[in-house]
Amino acid sequence: MDYQNFFTSALDRLQAERRYRVFAEIERLAGRYPQALWHSPEGPRPITVWCSNDYLGMGQNRDVTRAMVETAWRLGTGAGGTRNISGNSHPIVELEAELADLHSKEAALVFTSGYVSNQTGISTLAKLIPNCLILSDALNHNSMIEGVRQSGCDKAVFRHNDLEHLEELLQAAGDRPKLIVFESVYSMDGDISPIHAICDLAERYGAMTYIDEVHAVGMYGPRGGGIAEREGAMHRIDVIEGTMAKAFGVMGGYLTGTKAVMDAIRSFAPGFIFSTALPPAVAAAAMASIRHLKASSSERQQQQRQAARTKAVLSSVGLPVIDTPTHIVPVMVGDAEACKAASDRLLEKHGIYIQPINYPTVPRGTERLRITPGPSHTNAHIDALAAALVEVWTALGLPLESKVQAAE
Amino acid sequence: MDYQNFFTSALDRLQAERRYRVFAEIERLAGRYPQALWHSPEGPRPITVWCSNDYLGMGQNRDVTRAMVETAWRLGTGAGGTRNISGNSHPIVELEAELADLHSKEAALVFTSGYVSNQTGISTLAKLIPNCLILSDALNHNSMIEGVRQSGCDKAVFRHNDLEHLEELLQAAGDRPKLIVFESVYSMDGDISPIHAICDLAERYGAMTYIDEVHAVGMYGPRGGGIAEREGAMHRIDVIEGTMAKAFGVMGGYLTGTKAVMDAIRSFAPGFIFSTALPPAVAAAAMASIRHLKASSSERQQQQRQAARTKAVLSSVGLPVIDTPTHIVPVMVGDAEACKAASDRLLEKHGIYIQPINYPTVPRGTERLRITPGPSHTNAHIDALAAALVEVWTALGLPLESKVQAAE
Ligand SMILES: Cc1ncc(COP(=O)(O)O)c(C=O)c1O
Ligand SMILES: Cc1ncc(COP(=O)(O)O)c(C=O)c1O
Repeated sequence: MDYQNFFTSALDRLQAERRYRVFAEIERLAGRYPQALWHSPEGPRPITVWCSNDYLGMGQNRDVTRAMVETAWRLGTGAGGTRNISGNSHPIVELEAELADLHSKEAALVFTSGYVSNQTGISTLAKLIPNCLILSDALNHNSMIEGVRQSGCDKAVFRHNDLEHLEELLQAAGDRPKLIVFESVYSMDGDISPIHAICDLAERYGAMTYIDEVHAVGMYGPRGGGIAEREGAMHRIDVIEGTMAKAFGVMGGYLTGTKAVMDAIRSFAPGFIFSTALPPAVAAAAMASIRHLKASSSERQQQQRQAARTKAVLSSVGLPVIDTPTHIVPVMVGDAEACKAASDRLLEKHGIYIQPINYPTVPRGTERLRITPGPSHTNAHIDALAAALVEVWTALGLPLESKVQAAE
Repeated sequence: MDYQNFFTSALDRLQAERRYRVFAEIERLAGRYPQALWHSPEGPRPITVWCSNDYLGMGQNRDVTRAMVETAWRLGTGAGGTRNISGNSHPIVELEAELADLHSKEAALVFTSGYVSNQTGISTLAKLIPNCLILSDALNHNSMIEGVRQSGCDKAVFRHNDLEHLEELLQAAGDRPKLIVFESVYSMDGDISPIHAICDLAERYGAMTYIDEVHAVGMYGPRGGGIAEREGAMHRIDVIEGTMAKAFGVMGGYLTGTKAVMDAIRSFAPGFIFSTALPPAVAAAAMASIRHLKASSSERQQQQRQAARTKAVLSSVGLPVIDTPTHIVPVMVGDAEACKAASDRLLEKHGIYIQPINYPTVPRGTERLRITPGPSHTNAHIDALAAALVEVWTALGLPLESKVQAAE
């Protein structure tokens, strides 16, 4: 039996479809972000990062780093066990209290990643509800899809953000228990779900609600509680999920909700029970970041300003920018090979790093460059980005719309 | 619909079965391990930890901590994205090279945890092999079971470490592709699998092999490559899985194998693709620990010495110790409530922390205290442990065997 052959031929298929991914090796430089080093085949080269999910640059915040460093010296580098077996450190307990407060919930539970929180959280929740039907948005993240699958429950997928379709499915379900799972900010299109309207339907049809705020926490709402905080909807949602790896700049995922729900997930979720806890130093850094962003809105405001300016400047020079209501700026390419070529040319010729986003992360035909401006991208960075993109679009023969008005 | 009720009644069932878990809140103290602080209801109290999976105390090693701290100052606290989208840091690339070298494999792949490496690794591997049958040891860890389940492949479970049963199942499977998944050290009984004999069967019947060395890496083999290294069997196993959260004292999981297999998992595994990468500081700390234990055997030797002495002393005073061939020392209780009571009394009266191990971590009726001596447990610690256990056994009316010979 030639097992190697199964793997090489799977890889050949990826290559043939131009979907084989090459990871650029990057060295972020604390204090100089969005500047970084790219370990290119010819050696290290300075670049500007335009595709990081460290959305607010909190990964280089000195208070956050100091919390990690001091805790590592004081308590060591690892948790030493699962939460049950010697891994329940003081900082992780404090972090959970901080997160419950962030979302005005009774309790919170920390996981090793947002991925794990969704996968084991959704599956455990749904399994504990007898005869549960899961209603899932068509564009939900892979970690939510795997959670739905792992639950083994019936599922009904509603068209993305389509309230009529969701209502149809809720109606058709009759009076069995139901769980609606959806996101607030969808990270690839940068659009936002109608949270209040979904909660209205959930109330009308007696469904529980579960929201993924991974691309919103830290960045929306007066204290960074996410879109649900901004809209005054946190109390209407049963379970709010988030990550500490994006706007909070560290690592780890979490759920918040009532004491009973959190305690049940704590007690039954295999991905929580059977895995070593987050290191105390990681928990302490995440807590410092959450605390900072609860009190400070300047990062959020500057991010929104620079995102708006980026959209305006790029569209003024004719680039096919999707006008999103968020900090996410997709520039459409629509072809896997061209998308990769554009990204390569940006990096090699212009020192600008924007990873191509291809299938399976987005549907085929919607390949794009996904740009994430943050508070540390200056106006000069934005202008340089626009010029580089125009050069690349021209060189590759990609279409530019003719525009007359200049960017402000 | 009263959803809360589903969760509270599930929790009530746990309480009724005496399986409800309470996590002790612990503050490990770097440099003083196995001493730690317990945040008891009456305030912080000094304790001795006897159940940590930071088996060698590497979580307080100064070079390891220094690597975390320096990297956090230099590169920040988070990876900033998935491996594909700006999260492919220089330290994580170096760490993968170090891990491949540790196991003498062509390549390695790092995950956020050992749990995720098993779950997404096994499922992706098996899915890529057409019509694959997975042969799985009956005592495999939950993360492997979830990986097998998520693959959707046919599975056949062989009785724990039972070569005859495994051979029967291999024979019955005919010539379809097969994957054998097993562990080296089983963490709850502390026994070891017959690696060479399993590889003999795999060769005879044309199966791929996948081993979990989570409780062995760092601790066995001349460079800490695990039991397979010690037995000279690494080259016979297709995929070796490990964690950086136990003997290496940090966090994260990994797989090692051929370039093609690693590249295929890198390209297809959802739990790898869709989750933020390990922070550079965590990767750097793990690398420092692995490097240290490649070159130094003193921690391993001292651990084995103290584990042997612990077994001898505890059994000399009549405690029901299982005589394992590893560093893991289970003391049997056989009842969930008594196990919890013993653990509580040890902590409250003696300042000794050993978490009770109950169902579902072990089968009902085999509840136990699982003791993990390490290089920093002194002879005085061991003697104090023995005296405390005897006091607890006597107070709770648990059986002690009468022994005459004293411990050396
Ligand atoms: C919507 C969404 N949910 C969850 C996750 C997983 O979070 P983490 O990176 O913390 O694993 C991601 C991406 O990483 C995501 O985009
Ligand atoms: C055998 C085994 N494999 C895998 C894991 C998971 O590793 P990690 O703690 O790094 O998630 C564990 C326990 O935690 C384990 O006991």
